[in-house]
Amino acid sequence: MAVSVSAADVKALRDRTGAAMMDCKAALAEAGGDPEKAIEILRKKGQASAAKRSGRATAEGVVESYIHANGKVGALVEVQCETDFVARTDDFREFAREVAIHVAGMNPPPQYVSVDEIPESEREAERRIYEAKAKEEGKPDNVIDRIVEGQLAKWAKQVALLDQEHIRSDRYDGKTIEEIRAELAANTGENVRIARFAHFRVGEE
Amino acid sequence: MAVSVSAADVKALRDRTGAAMMDCKAALAEAGGDPEKAIEILRKKGQASAAKRSGRATAEGVVESYIHANGKVGALVEVQCETDFVARTDDFREFAREVAIHVAGMNPPPQYVSVDEIPESEREAERRIYEAKAKEEGKPDNVIDRIVEGQLAKWAKQVALLDQEHIRSDRYDGKTIEEIRAELAANTGENVRIARFAHFRVGEE
Repeated sequence: MAVSVSAADVKALRDRTGAAMMDCKAALAEAGGDPEKAIEILRKKGQASAAKRSGRATAEGVVESYIHANGKVGALVEVQCETDFVARTDDFREFAREVAIHVAGMNPPPQYVSVDEIPESEREAERRIYEAKAKEEGKPDNVIDRIVEGQLAKWAKQVALLDQEHIRSDRYDGKTIEEIRAELAANTGENVRIARFAHFRVGEE
Repeated sequence: MAVSVSAADVKALRDRTGAAMMDCKAALAEAGGDPEKAIEILRKKGQASAAKRSGRATAEGVVESYIHANGKVGALVEVQCETDFVARTDDFREFAREVAIHVAGMNPPPQYVSVDEIPESEREAERRIYEAKAKEEGKPDNVIDRIVEGQLAKWAKQVALLDQEHIRSDRYDGKTIEEIRAELAANTGENVRIARFAHFRVGEE
C-alpha cells in the first residue's frame, strides 16, 4: 500500500531528527505516516550506519575557537570528518563552533573528549577517594564496591566532553555533545570526530 | 644646560623604541638631543625596570585565538599582565592576537613558551642524537662537546616561542616574540607574561 507523505510531514520529521529529507520521506512511508514510528525507524537505521561510519578514517575537518566576550576564557577545538567537502559546509563549521562555545563556557571545563581517554592512573586515584569516603561514612563493605562504581561512572561523565549536555540548553534542550555529534554524522553521512580541545582561563594554568 | 626637545623627535624615538612619551622626552633631554644616546639610556633604564617587573605577579590578562583563513589550523594563547586596566588596552590585546597569529602560522609550531620549560629528558634525548651524529661524522672527541652544545642551544631556540622571530617579518622586522613582549612591558610598565599556548592543525594530533 502506497502511503501519501506530505512535504510538511517530511519537514517536521527532519526538524525533529536532523535526518536527511530522503531518509525522512522513506521512514514516513515505511511507518505508514506515523511520525513516532518513523523516528524509531530512523534511529535504528542511524545507529546501523553510525556503526559503519565510526570506523572510517577522518583526515579532514576544521579547527575552531571561541573567546568569551570578557576575553578571560577561550577554547580551541579540532573536529574531523572524512572529506573536505563536508568540512566546508555551514552545518559542520557551526557544530565545531558550538563545541568551542560549550568548552569555553564550562566551569570546570571538560578534561577529556570521551570517558575512554581517562588514564587508568587518574581513574584509580579517583576510586581511592570514593572508597575512603564510603568507609569513613561507615557504609557496609558489601555495598562499597557498588557505591564507588556508581560515583566513578558519574565522575567520568562529568569530565568527558561527549557526555556533557550542551551548555546552551535553550538551543539544545538537554542534548549531550555526543547526541549533537551523532546527528551531524547522520546528516552528513560521514564519521564526525571531536579530535581534541584546549580550554584556557586567565590565571588558571 | 636645558636642551630643547621637539615633539617630532620624541615621537620618532617612541616609534623606534616603543617606550612611553615621557620616558622618550626625558631620555632625549639627558642625551642632549642625540637619539642614539637616548636609545642607550632607555635601554639601560628599560632593563633595570624590566628586572624589577619580571618578579611581579600577573593575575590578569587575556585569552586570544587565531584561526587561519583555511580553517585547518588555529592557535589559542593566554597572555598575562598585572592589572585588568592594562589587559583591556588595545596594545595588550593586539600583542596577544599577534602571538596567536604567530603560533598558528609556524610549521612546525613552537613546543614551549621559553627554553627553561624544555624538560630535561627531552633535552637529553636531543643531545644523544647530536652526539651520535657527530661521532658518525668522525668529529674528534675534544670538539664533540662544543658542537653538541651549539646544536642543542640552536634547537632549544627553535622550539621555544619567545626566541622565535615573529612570522610577520614585514611588520616586526626580525624581532623575536621576546623583544616584542619586552617592548609592551616597557610601554605598559607591567610585567607581561605569555603563560601558555595551544596549536592545532587538522590531522596532526
